[in-house]
Amino acid sequence: MALQVYNTLHRRKELFTPQHEGFVGIYVCGPTVYGHSHLGHAKSYVSFDVIVRFLRSLGYRVLYVQNITDVGHLTDDADQGEDKLARQARIDRIPPMQLAETYTRSYFEDMDTLNVLRPDIVPRASGHITEQISMVQTLIGKGMAYVANGSVYFDVGSFPAYGKLSGRTVEDLNAGARVEIKEEKKHPADFALWKRADAGHIMRWPSPWGEGFPGWHIECSAMSMKYLGEGFDIHGGGLENQFPHHECEIAQSEGATGKPFVRYWLHNNMVTVNGKKMGKSLGNFITLKDAFAKWDPQVVRFFILQSHYRSTLDFSDEALDGARAGYEKLANTLRNLREKIAIAPDGGEGTGVDLDRRTAEFRNAMDDDFNTPQAIAVLFDVARELNQAFASEKNYGRPSLEAIDRWYALHAGSVLGIMTGDARGAGSSGPLVGPLVELLIAIRSDIRLQKLWALSDKIRDGLARIGIGLEDKKAGTTWKNIS
Amino acid sequence: MALQVYNTLHRRKELFTPQHEGFVGIYVCGPTVYGHSHLGHAKSYVSFDVIVRFLRSLGYRVLYVQNITDVGHLTDDADQGEDKLARQARIDRIPPMQLAETYTRSYFEDMDTLNVLRPDIVPRASGHITEQISMVQTLIGKGMAYVANGSVYFDVGSFPAYGKLSGRTVEDLNAGARVEIKEEKKHPADFALWKRADAGHIMRWPSPWGEGFPGWHIECSAMSMKYLGEGFDIHGGGLENQFPHHECEIAQSEGATGKPFVRYWLHNNMVTVNGKKMGKSLGNFITLKDAFAKWDPQVVRFFILQSHYRSTLDFSDEALDGARAGYEKLANTLRNLREKIAIAPDGGEGTGVDLDRRTAEFRNAMDDDFNTPQAIAVLFDVARELNQAFASEKNYGRPSLEAIDRWYALHAGSVLGIMTGDARGAGSSGPLVGPLVELLIAIRSDIRLQKLWALSDKIRDGLARIGIGLEDKKAGTTWKNIS
Repeated sequence: MALQVYNTLHRRKELFTPQHEGFVGIYVCGPTVYGHSHLGHAKSYVSFDVIVRFLRSLGYRVLYVQNITDVGHLTDDADQGEDKLARQARIDRIPPMQLAETYTRSYFEDMDTLNVLRPDIVPRASGHITEQISMVQTLIGKGMAYVANGSVYFDVGSFPAYGKLSGRTVEDLNAGARVEIKEEKKHPADFALWKRADAGHIMRWPSPWGEGFPGWHIECSAMSMKYLGEGFDIHGGGLENQFPHHECEIAQSEGATGKPFVRYWLHNNMVTVNGKKMGKSLGNFITLKDAFAKWDPQVVRFFILQSHYRSTLDFSDEALDGARAGYEKLANTLRNLREKIAIAPDGGEGTGVDLDRRTAEFRNAMDDDFNTPQAIAVLFDVARELNQAFASEKNYGRPSLEAIDRWYALHAGSVLGIMTGDARGAGSSGPLVGPLVELLIAIRSDIRLQKLWALSDKIRDGLARIGIGLEDKKAGTTWKNIS
Repeated sequence: MALQVYNTLHRRKELFTPQHEGFVGIYVCGPTVYGHSHLGHAKSYVSFDVIVRFLRSLGYRVLYVQNITDVGHLTDDADQGEDKLARQARIDRIPPMQLAETYTRSYFEDMDTLNVLRPDIVPRASGHITEQISMVQTLIGKGMAYVANGSVYFDVGSFPAYGKLSGRTVEDLNAGARVEIKEEKKHPADFALWKRADAGHIMRWPSPWGEGFPGWHIECSAMSMKYLGEGFDIHGGGLENQFPHHECEIAQSEGATGKPFVRYWLHNNMVTVNGKKMGKSLGNFITLKDAFAKWDPQVVRFFILQSHYRSTLDFSDEALDGARAGYEKLANTLRNLREKIAIAPDGGEGTGVDLDRRTAEFRNAMDDDFNTPQAIAVLFDVARELNQAFASEKNYGRPSLEAIDRWYALHAGSVLGIMTGDARGAGSSGPLVGPLVELLIAIRSDIRLQKLWALSDKIRDGLARIGIGLEDKKAGTTWKNIS
């Protein structure tokens, strides 16, 4: 089977064939950096992280671009309201770019903690004003946009395919438009490409139409095409951005270039809390920093991947506790495996786990529009078989056990980004670990001189459970991470 | 005494008085991100980090802007050669902005490791093309710059004060100019504000003069004035950037605004290796990642601060070993202090250390153009007195000891950024620390049941040395970080 992805543009699963053989260009809408990231961000960026990891595991060279929105995103997500950053900066009494710096850093801290690999290029919207102005000029030149009172609007009537992503029509939009229509718009469904900066608006740049700032939608068109070309493979983002944001991106980009913009549109679904939409106004908003205080970030990541990226993810304490139980079950099996490897003979029996079959199952799951819950089920299938094998108390050979360990390192670790060395409690030794282990070794040495073998074994076994193996040599005892 | 700083502009120490009471705006030239950071970067950014920390400790609200140069910095540091990023990106076969992303991240990783606080705003040069073009237009409008063949040059003859920072004259410059003079320059000393992009040049933007890219110097003028205003307090950077970079910044900025650009120019001196200039071509180039593999980053920071920022810093294994010995001496005293605090009585005697006097000495050292070697000497003076006090075996009271601990937390920790909790081996507990300590407590409990008191004490004392205190209660033994 080959990779099939659900393309929102055509509302069906399609065979994935990139534009250039062996190379995938992917753009994902990044965060608007005016506050700490929440569970919704985690769902989106963990999902696309796994998509990028899987594409790389298939041998593709992937160029992953994810922007930072630091200007132009208004409080109503469309053309009305205040700039989200300008508003928060006013409240915090700091310059907007200091706010952007603070929350960009906070965002990446949280993503690093979730084991989300950094995108290859992270363009800032405010850093691409020139590119955005150029694109607006092109659209005006083609008669697809018009200047009104220092702002520039896209004329949706000039792009007949408007609505092809979201399934909305211009008629629907006109009919459903708000009462307060900006008089300067020719049609209610037209959207802003460039907005005039009123007196007192802090974030402003000179333009052919006077001082102003870019519309939110034009940013992603300008930045994605700058780094990935006029037509590229995958555009990702949250479902809530399908309309108007992504619909507008298509209209602007295809309007400006006359070429297809994106081959595959991928949208992740949203997070609910105890069955209800999560929102600041609803008071059920959970930041990642709060979540990490309660749950291991690896468990949060595991929880997210246990549901499909196109399904809603319902967050509750019970659901997280359930995920933790599953995660620990798998982690225990892996720890047990490492302990067995440490003492396994070079020869010895095979475990009988059919890794080729499981590899195919894992690949099939991921090939089916990145079905991570199914892929995780395969990880559990291998664990179950392995635990059965261990129950028989046979003396398995090191090569057979190491093959399973490598299988997990690839499928759980590299592709899904879970059960990595750190997650199993080893590898990430803090500065105190060495001295503590050395102290235990020194105490154990004294204990052994007094022939208190039970206590000596208690230290060895206790350390092994933590993931630290001792080796007694003539010159003394050494230790190493075994998990 | 009040803060005196050495102002390169006037070649003397001057009383520091910021433009706006209580507020300091500071701009420091950031790295050109085409490779890993080296010891020269550490010297510069640790120095300015301490300057910012000290200003904050004086009660100033500081806005610290430090740019990232990701375009326009040519291989000869002036107007000739290839763009440093474009060149490296071609060698690495990745897009220049991916290179910039990679090494920006690497730079901040290293700075975080050195306990350098992040700047408040980190503008990217490529993200401020609009601002740079506007400034070039202003200079052309004022007759201080001219267009030649798609490039724009600053006419140094139009700015009589050119040379005021570096002490060079236009005549010197013309006489000493290279043989290969770009014919399009009217005078050999003129410098590029905007360069025409030849065919094949990747990083290019549209401009009123055709497609091109900004000159290196204009970037810092545009970014510093955008975030700090047309005139601001402090501009910092390495001495090697005094000419031409900072000289050109003054000419452009003051030429464009007609106002004084910067009140205080602060320059840090360079790093030598075994007495010789450090350079890639000399083969004695030491990256921070290599240095950290050999020495504790806190020791590297301590080493840097043991010489004055305006002195050269000579790096050698012996010098670093010496710094480590000094660092450990101070760290041991602090660890000892923490151990004493853990067991000190609530009342009890005072240590007799005159903290008011030492505070004044520390402040005087820092007030004298940020004399960190002298400030560190005061830290050692307090340590010496404290060790003398401990030698007398008196039973000092907790309040007196805690006052000294707070004194170090402020002067060594907050101001100099050394001897912080983490550095003393505690606070930064890795995930294994808890389980290891619990294992030691369990073993100790068994040992106590067998009345092996010497072994029990060995565990308690060993943990205390590491910075972990045990407390035996009826319900069992608990532990906490005491360092």
